[in-house]
Amino acid sequence: MKTSVGLHTYLQERRERVEAALGNVFPADWPIPERLREAMDYSLLAGGKRLRPILALAAAEAVSGREETSSMALPFACAVEMIHTYSLIHDDLPAMDDDDYRRGRLTNHKVFGEAMAILAGDGLLTHAFHVAAGAAEAGVPPERVLAVVRDLSRYAGLPGMVGGQVSDMLGEQGITSLEQLEHIHLHKTSDLIAFSLRAGGHAAEADERQLDGLGRFGRNVGLAFQIQDDILDLVGTEDKLGKPVRSDERQQKVTYPYLLGLDESRVRVSELTREASEALLQAGLAKPDRLLEIADYLLNRDH
Amino acid sequence: MKTSVGLHTYLQERRERVEAALGNVFPADWPIPERLREAMDYSLLAGGKRLRPILALAAAEAVSGREETSSMALPFACAVEMIHTYSLIHDDLPAMDDDDYRRGRLTNHKVFGEAMAILAGDGLLTHAFHVAAGAAEAGVPPERVLAVVRDLSRYAGLPGMVGGQVSDMLGEQGITSLEQLEHIHLHKTSDLIAFSLRAGGHAAEADERQLDGLGRFGRNVGLAFQIQDDILDLVGTEDKLGKPVRSDERQQKVTYPYLLGLDESRVRVSELTREASEALLQAGLAKPDRLLEIADYLLNRDH
Repeated sequence: MKTSVGLHTYLQERRERVEAALGNVFPADWPIPERLREAMDYSLLAGGKRLRPILALAAAEAVSGREETSSMALPFACAVEMIHTYSLIHDDLPAMDDDDYRRGRLTNHKVFGEAMAILAGDGLLTHAFHVAAGAAEAGVPPERVLAVVRDLSRYAGLPGMVGGQVSDMLGEQGITSLEQLEHIHLHKTSDLIAFSLRAGGHAAEADERQLDGLGRFGRNVGLAFQIQDDILDLVGTEDKLGKPVRSDERQQKVTYPYLLGLDESRVRVSELTREASEALLQAGLAKPDRLLEIADYLLNRDH
Repeated sequence: MKTSVGLHTYLQERRERVEAALGNVFPADWPIPERLREAMDYSLLAGGKRLRPILALAAAEAVSGREETSSMALPFACAVEMIHTYSLIHDDLPAMDDDDYRRGRLTNHKVFGEAMAILAGDGLLTHAFHVAAGAAEAGVPPERVLAVVRDLSRYAGLPGMVGGQVSDMLGEQGITSLEQLEHIHLHKTSDLIAFSLRAGGHAAEADERQLDGLGRFGRNVGLAFQIQDDILDLVGTEDKLGKPVRSDERQQKVTYPYLLGLDESRVRVSELTREASEALLQAGLAKPDRLLEIADYLLNRDH
């Protein structure tokens, strides 16, 4: 007898909860310039997998073994999606990747102008900390909320996502080794995913061993996810991905398939997913199953 | 008999403490790309009055009546200066004010390039929260630290500095009323100053009445400071200011002297300084004298 809903239903239900919450992250009674609100909402409510926030919710549930716990993690889930969104807005700027489209829509600066896109990113980044700190009102103990604030500023910050972005930029022409490429992805992508899992853990008052296991699971899943993205860019179909394929090739990006070949890249995804599972199973979680299922899904997706 | 050092010595000593602390805000053992560290330090350690951090320290001392309390406020003092610095870096970008010089030196993007300047700003903003949250280790109770994190994300964020920046940008051509101009400066400038004072108050475990008084003091001092800046741009000498004068006129900026005339602007500065003093004297602080002295100094400065 099945004790819980299928993965597809689970992901959809959690995504809807996250999107409902994201629709309310800007307090209605705050005097926020309307155009700024529009610019932030344009990118924040643009859809997407909502992978990071869903992982935060699932991590909380895995630690406690109870689905209700995920509501404690909801502020952290929203915060990480806001950070992810600001980073996309700033990445797309002319001075950075200079992208006109993302997920089939015009990028933020193409609609609102460069100055507003910079400020919308700054606003989302700043407000993410407000939302995360708000978890204290949802009943998360202040010490735990503070730990998450510090984690967020670290994983999204200098030794994390921002640092990874800089390494990527500085290395753009000269990445020749797998180590360099892995270093960049670990910080650009994995760190925020590891944060999501640890934050969910904190919401459920995880102990150090559990937090560590969740973080390592996130690190490996994040890297696998990135390699899978590179593979799909090469072998996926535009129809399923909802974006042009082979864009990495056209942009002469150094990717895993470029450095390792396609088969070896697939092996690396499998290895990382196995390492992720092991880290999770050793973490002493009440109910690790759903997180394992999500990892499996990420490994086998075609979009 | 004098019970404490003169204002000049006080400001210098506090500025040196803040600058020493700012020199150590990036943990030495964090893997931060060297070029990113340089770009952040270039702007963070570029001097300046350090008004905001000094006010945070002075507010803590005013609440407790003891100079030692300011060490509890030092992490908040550093955080606000990091926020102030990131906002200057982003403001100077070509897509924003497009400035080549600040305080007589090339702006961040002129030295490090636009992409790095955007990321250095993002990094400083993100890390400011890490530094602020670190006050828990300096002995500030977690509930107070969380209150400051929420204050910081609000005063520096959507209804505060970022929102003020957006209003400024959107109104640039069409500001015709004093109300509009005041609204912009309240958020662009005053909010971060009000935050500094409240954060210092929190560090000394101020009660609601004290926090409110400190915040109103900061709001009025911040506005007076901005008007004084506008006046000095018009009547100051390049020698004393260390920057070109009459730049507002050349840029056709709408300023207080432009809307009110010079004499009326001076009256407004006096009024605001008096309102600031009143707010402070009604706040029930142990030792408000130093903050009053600083407000007086800001009113009478010629640079």
